[in-house]
Amino acid sequence: MLHIFFLLPLLLSTSHASVNDFCVADLKGQDGPSGYPCKPPSKVTTHDFVYAGLAAEGSTSNIISAAVTPAFVAQFPGLNGLGLSAARLDIAPGGVIPLHTHPGASELLIVTEGLVTAGFIASDNSVYVKKLSKGQVFILPQGLLHFQLSYGKSKAVAYAVFSSSNPGLQILDFALFASNFSSSLITQTTFLDPEQVKKLKSVLGGSG
Amino acid sequence: MLHIFFLLPLLLSTSHASVNDFCVADLKGQDGPSGYPCKPPSKVTTHDFVYAGLAAEGSTSNIISAAVTPAFVAQFPGLNGLGLSAARLDIAPGGVIPLHTHPGASELLIVTEGLVTAGFIASDNSVYVKKLSKGQVFILPQGLLHFQLSYGKSKAVAYAVFSSSNPGLQILDFALFASNFSSSLITQTTFLDPEQVKKLKSVLGGSG
Amino acid sequence: MLHIFFLLPLLLSTSHASVNDFCVADLKGQDGPSGYPCKPPSKVTTHDFVYAGLAAEGSTSNIISAAVTPAFVAQFPGLNGLGLSAARLDIAPGGVIPLHTHPGASELLIVTEGLVTAGFIASDNSVYVKKLSKGQVFILPQGLLHFQLSYGKSKAVAYAVFSSSNPGLQILDFALFASNFSSSLITQTTFLDPEQVKKLKSVLGGSG
Amino acid sequence: MLHIFFLLPLLLSTSHASVNDFCVADLKGQDGPSGYPCKPPSKVTTHDFVYAGLAAEGSTSNIISAAVTPAFVAQFPGLNGLGLSAARLDIAPGGVIPLHTHPGASELLIVTEGLVTAGFIASDNSVYVKKLSKGQVFILPQGLLHFQLSYGKSKAVAYAVFSSSNPGLQILDFALFASNFSSSLITQTTFLDPEQVKKLKSVLGGSG
Amino acid sequence: MLHIFFLLPLLLSTSHASVNDFCVADLKGQDGPSGYPCKPPSKVTTHDFVYAGLAAEGSTSNIISAAVTPAFVAQFPGLNGLGLSAARLDIAPGGVIPLHTHPGASELLIVTEGLVTAGFIASDNSVYVKKLSKGQVFILPQGLLHFQLSYGKSKAVAYAVFSSSNPGLQILDFALFASNFSSSLITQTTFLDPEQVKKLKSVLGGSG
Amino acid sequence: MLHIFFLLPLLLSTSHASVNDFCVADLKGQDGPSGYPCKPPSKVTTHDFVYAGLAAEGSTSNIISAAVTPAFVAQFPGLNGLGLSAARLDIAPGGVIPLHTHPGASELLIVTEGLVTAGFIASDNSVYVKKLSKGQVFILPQGLLHFQLSYGKSKAVAYAVFSSSNPGLQILDFALFASNFSSSLITQTTFLDPEQVKKLKSVLGGSG
Repeated sequence: MLHIFFLLPLLLSTSHASVNDFCVADLKGQDGPSGYPCKPPSKVTTHDFVYAGLAAEGSTSNIISAAVTPAFVAQFPGLNGLGLSAARLDIAPGGVIPLHTHPGASELLIVTEGLVTAGFIASDNSVYVKKLSKGQVFILPQGLLHFQLSYGKSKAVAYAVFSSSNPGLQILDFALFASNFSSSLITQTTFLDPEQVKKLKSVLGGSG
Repeated sequence: MLHIFFLLPLLLSTSHASVNDFCVADLKGQDGPSGYPCKPPSKVTTHDFVYAGLAAEGSTSNIISAAVTPAFVAQFPGLNGLGLSAARLDIAPGGVIPLHTHPGASELLIVTEGLVTAGFIASDNSVYVKKLSKGQVFILPQGLLHFQLSYGKSKAVAYAVFSSSNPGLQILDFALFASNFSSSLITQTTFLDPEQVKKLKSVLGGSG
Repeated sequence: MLHIFFLLPLLLSTSHASVNDFCVADLKGQDGPSGYPCKPPSKVTTHDFVYAGLAAEGSTSNIISAAVTPAFVAQFPGLNGLGLSAARLDIAPGGVIPLHTHPGASELLIVTEGLVTAGFIASDNSVYVKKLSKGQVFILPQGLLHFQLSYGKSKAVAYAVFSSSNPGLQILDFALFASNFSSSLITQTTFLDPEQVKKLKSVLGGSG
Repeated sequence: MLHIFFLLPLLLSTSHASVNDFCVADLKGQDGPSGYPCKPPSKVTTHDFVYAGLAAEGSTSNIISAAVTPAFVAQFPGLNGLGLSAARLDIAPGGVIPLHTHPGASELLIVTEGLVTAGFIASDNSVYVKKLSKGQVFILPQGLLHFQLSYGKSKAVAYAVFSSSNPGLQILDFALFASNFSSSLITQTTFLDPEQVKKLKSVLGGSG
Repeated sequence: MLHIFFLLPLLLSTSHASVNDFCVADLKGQDGPSGYPCKPPSKVTTHDFVYAGLAAEGSTSNIISAAVTPAFVAQFPGLNGLGLSAARLDIAPGGVIPLHTHPGASELLIVTEGLVTAGFIASDNSVYVKKLSKGQVFILPQGLLHFQLSYGKSKAVAYAVFSSSNPGLQILDFALFASNFSSSLITQTTFLDPEQVKKLKSVLGGSG
Repeated sequence: MLHIFFLLPLLLSTSHASVNDFCVADLKGQDGPSGYPCKPPSKVTTHDFVYAGLAAEGSTSNIISAAVTPAFVAQFPGLNGLGLSAARLDIAPGGVIPLHTHPGASELLIVTEGLVTAGFIASDNSVYVKKLSKGQVFILPQGLLHFQLSYGKSKAVAYAVFSSSNPGLQILDFALFASNFSSSLITQTTFLDPEQVKKLKSVLGGSG
């Protein structure tokens, strides 16, 4: 009697054909408001669900003595549509991830090495800052200005995980001083002194 | 030391490549349940975020003495995926926007000129009607029958804003009397008299 | 004066052009996280909103004495984007729909013929089992293991309705014993005896 | 060694305490935009996931020769937060469920007995009408005017399933003629004749 | 026969009891992730759906020569759960709404009087700036830095409408210089000069 | 002139009063479908956004030689409503996290120490298994059966991050053999031999 059992997969096969538990991004397709089109299931392999790009240490030989290595949907297509992404933060002693926001996601920060000070500013201008050590986690609500810096004598590593496969990243200094946002508009809308604006634009390469 | 700073944008450039804070509709693409595919970021300009079509007064030389000018995603592609759209209402004295629903959005009505009576009927058949003057706002919950009319001696202008980039618009009279919904089905499902149905179909062009 | 009324449809025609109250799946298009692209409205007919595939009784001449006939988006494209789908369950006396989950939806079970025992196990390992007769409904929360079986002397029919147009279906026995999940990993991750695994794999056709 | 296994549930018990796979409505609590507060898990029983109120035939001894029996969250608290609800339709020969909308949900209609004509009108005034027999299903997109009627010689039964635990129900005739929506506003916003309005108000009990 | 019709409302009354097309905020209740608890339907009046607070001109006798008057859920409880809110902007000649973000919503800006320059900076540091006149609308995607200023000789008025009933508002200068964000952390995370920070803190009242 | 600037905070204070960028769970309140009610903003401190419970190694002195330490909303109230949570996995050599699902979330697995084999089974019974080393990440789509085990000679540590503040956790063996799911129903719905069921129930403490 058991041999009839083999028929069961066939009976259900039409539903199987349509199942998509996941939607690995076809990055060559045109994305939409909810993400990229799905790679055909027949072409999906285990490789699509794994990303090794966060294993390597980011170079901190730069002025901020820090590096951000993203694993967003553009780097890790398996995340598409699943509401998660990550980034690795490497912060050398004295290094800092400058003030920034993620317009499209909240962030959970997990410190895995060293000592990290993290903080955010809320809409009512309350400031929440905390010194974190290995294994501690910090939640940074969506869209608010925040930063991370290393306060120890050795380098720090942390993973930032986001509630979107494409959280966005707006770095305050880059938005103001590495863009072509006109100096006149900057001073009008921030009350910074023109000299300050000029100085930081010359460092960061902004124009306008 | 500052010159090293120039490296930072490069370090982060992979994430920048994938950022899409917005998804301007490519109206030639095939839409899906969450909207249209995104125009490539490299082709997006300021023009995509601006719409001038609501600046002009709509003609009220018609039997309802009113006009609705939409700025939905089909007219204003920058709205795609952002959960907002708008329409301009021009209502001459005595004019009326007939009873209608938006199947996919709630509406916030902002009166900017003249005097407007607006109202909606809730599922429990409660009726909420209010006379509004300039600067007053009225919220009309999703999917419920509502109307707007001018009750003053001069024309009225209002902006209706919606919680979807494509709210839909079902005008009761058009659904019944400008469609090919058969007169027999109309009388069966509304209890209107056949003469009434025939009369309004002849005015609005319905068939069936 | 009434003749001017004919102008109203024209005034509103631009918004009508963009309305999509529905998004019938173009199954030849590439799906995305929110579903399939929409069939052009001009090609949509009444046929797209109707599905007759659940009218016929599924064959229960198999070892489980039961059949599941799906009306998911792949079978019924009109469901695309609307958050609903269905399946017909035919269960002969003594038949059983084996333990399974729907990763992407909750299920409402409606018994329309015969007697059905249904049950689910919650995350805290509480078990909820109920004997249902014609007309009774049972709600099975998303993602939890559940089953249905016939406990009467005549066949049972039920409709399962889902909160997604593509709920997914993971049948426990198939996942373990009809797949190429290695026997070694199965015993390690389930504590089942190797003989048990071997026996069921031979019945269900699993490898590895 | 196996005895140590008993420790595992303890290790995980903190997470179990917080699990809520479901949120059975505490109907005495104050609801919010996403539904009712949850009944404490310790008080939840199998009974909460079952509803028997759709098993009994609704009385069709009324002018529409039809009955709608709802299983929304207010009747069936187990649905709370799960995005599903149902209603039973009993339609005697010649009976009709008058034109109505569900402001908050799409509807899947499953005919289980008799012959049912169902139809809806889209935003572009297209009309989709279909004669359905037992086992056929029809999808009615959110917020659009639709109806069901029996076209056979024997009574019809159908289950309407919704994509919300609280879909709402606005019956056109009741909104207009059983409410206190003033006759003057009705004629202004629908173009119905005053006599027609007066006649239906007298039947349905409307005032104003 | 028509008298039987009166029974219909009774037949359906159980469903009516549970309908909530809207959820007017009970601001004295405890809010949750999706908003405030609902005011009992029996206590809801037309007044709950209307807000007059945007009708009055905001005072621009301040250093920014501008005023923002919000109609968020805290001011206008009828918005609760409906995904919409608004604010009135009054900008005197030369006035400016300083650089800010809304962490939880996109914004549609409608100019109703005067001339307004509005702009935002995207995650890739592209700058989108536009001079707008009466009736023009501008869409500002969620979470990005943006500003509005008057560029004409007379005062400007605009309505900002948001895709959330509680969009949040983080003003850059206030977050940095009106808070207790320590000057040391500001200079570390923004590269602004200490003198600049000190100067703006003294103006805006910041400490730390 | 600058002194007038102090007025700006006052002008905007009404909106500030209503801002809630976050909703720290009041765990003593009654939860609902979208989470717990919010702790009053005035009582929120930095402490609410930090969780130290994942810093300590979980004890692996048990039969699975592994431990799961959750940081879900019940342990870490700051996560409420933000769509994120985490768990720490400690796996001794030879240890295993048995086959399980998260009914309400996808999981991103980040290996931070040692060597981990992780895998999941899709709805079409495809098996995706991968050996991961430090720094590699693996995405496990919502609701699918998956496992993690250590394959190296030293212990492994990984962080699992979830797309919900309350992802749920259903461990297959516990659902079947540590519950009161009757042995008769288990054999009927899984085809496991009664002896196998009896054996594992005796180990895991199940009844029924």
